[in-house]
Amino acid sequence: MTIQRVERGAARAAEDVLAVEEPLEISIGGRNVSITMRTPGNDEELAVGFLFSEGILRDRGQVSQVAITGDNQVNVSLAGSASLDLARLDRHFYTSSSCGVCGKTSIQSLETAGCPVIPRDRPLLDPAVVGRLPETLRQSQQVFARTGGLHGAALFDPAGNLLDLREDVGRHNAVDKLIGARFLRGDLPLSDRILLLSGRASFELVQKAVMAGIGAIVAVGAPSSLAVELANQFGITLIGFARPERFNVYSGEFRLRVREAPPEKP
Amino acid sequence: MTIQRVERGAARAAEDVLAVEEPLEISIGGRNVSITMRTPGNDEELAVGFLFSEGILRDRGQVSQVAITGDNQVNVSLAGSASLDLARLDRHFYTSSSCGVCGKTSIQSLETAGCPVIPRDRPLLDPAVVGRLPETLRQSQQVFARTGGLHGAALFDPAGNLLDLREDVGRHNAVDKLIGARFLRGDLPLSDRILLLSGRASFELVQKAVMAGIGAIVAVGAPSSLAVELANQFGITLIGFARPERFNVYSGEFRLRVREAPPEKP
Repeated sequence: MTIQRVERGAARAAEDVLAVEEPLEISIGGRNVSITMRTPGNDEELAVGFLFSEGILRDRGQVSQVAITGDNQVNVSLAGSASLDLARLDRHFYTSSSCGVCGKTSIQSLETAGCPVIPRDRPLLDPAVVGRLPETLRQSQQVFARTGGLHGAALFDPAGNLLDLREDVGRHNAVDKLIGARFLRGDLPLSDRILLLSGRASFELVQKAVMAGIGAIVAVGAPSSLAVELANQFGITLIGFARPERFNVYSGEFRLRVREAPPEKP
Repeated sequence: MTIQRVERGAARAAEDVLAVEEPLEISIGGRNVSITMRTPGNDEELAVGFLFSEGILRDRGQVSQVAITGDNQVNVSLAGSASLDLARLDRHFYTSSSCGVCGKTSIQSLETAGCPVIPRDRPLLDPAVVGRLPETLRQSQQVFARTGGLHGAALFDPAGNLLDLREDVGRHNAVDKLIGARFLRGDLPLSDRILLLSGRASFELVQKAVMAGIGAIVAVGAPSSLAVELANQFGITLIGFARPERFNVYSGEFRLRVREAPPEKP
């Protein structure tokens, strides 16, 4: 689109590319369960990733088909024998903007939902690899994100190889798309994978990682208090402020192969 | 909390301050309508600001009391004569994480909801003032946001004076708190005010500005496509990528006192 670029009080017409944001209506078995503002693309992944990380879908076998049913509408059809946890659907009806979960209550429901147990011995994290991840993401995002308006979420293996990348105006959508892609391939839990977030780590994003069995989260931004609490509870390694050569470890440091630093000089 | 700071493979214990994130349950007349993940503080403002920007509350006179009713719970009591738009409540039940609104449908509902008409002749925007706003916000945020994990939203007058600042892990919450504070003082619409956002401008945030009658939004980050569409429709000036001396104008350039730049040299 054409915008006005103003510099020192002088305006000049310029071309700019915007991150696309549109509503997506997600239905399961024809029943509307969610509307989310998202960047169009990978909508089938987004739908199943969202339903999986909300605990409504549990495994690939429950789903017979995922179909785009209209302009910004996607429907997940259930296999004949599959039944839904309707209480979770109803709980979800009760949640609202930018939440989707309920803190303390939700930590309990995660425990009782039979989340995958996350192995404590993998992935083993090499600090040199961790420090390189944000730059790898940035280079891959350059192709897509000329807009400056997209969050990225990516899966890496422990050697630092980029396996999958999704982008969206909503960071929770980017993670849902990433997990949804794996769900559709029947490739869950993701025990030996590292989840990289281009921004901050909130409770909601750690919750999605728990559901997917992801043992390590590396965020370029800061984690919140409840994100750290949840990561601790499930033994997830949560790293924040990731930069080349340095980062902060908020929980699960047992996965990191670090040496002890010499005492600081006074 | 104590974290591990890793640099070039060596770990050292360090103290870090986290942005606090906890769930808040919002009720109106004792009926639960929303749970949002927020940074505690100004919860009364958050509750009424949320209900106002969702179109559930219309004016101060409808509210008799706003009370903290428990750990992370707030209830808005209605004045005897006030009635609620229950359809809006039901619509809200149907929405979900990080959305709260429904794009095209919501643009229509904003039109029919009798939003305040936003005057086209104010606020008049001086480019030098606009360029200074992010730095003013940053200086004020320094006191609060040692965590790197909080979004800021602020109201300015056209001369660039900071009137109000709210911070939250959720940018929509920061805006709700800002608008809620004005709602409680009976100080709406905010026709002659500038809304500054520390991050990106999404559809949802522009929607809240529409409800509050705000004529100018300045974002440090990028706007989304639907944010620009909505701002255009309601004649809001939407500025993005605000930096000292320069910024991009995505809609409502008629409020800006700029001169035309000389043609670029080939």
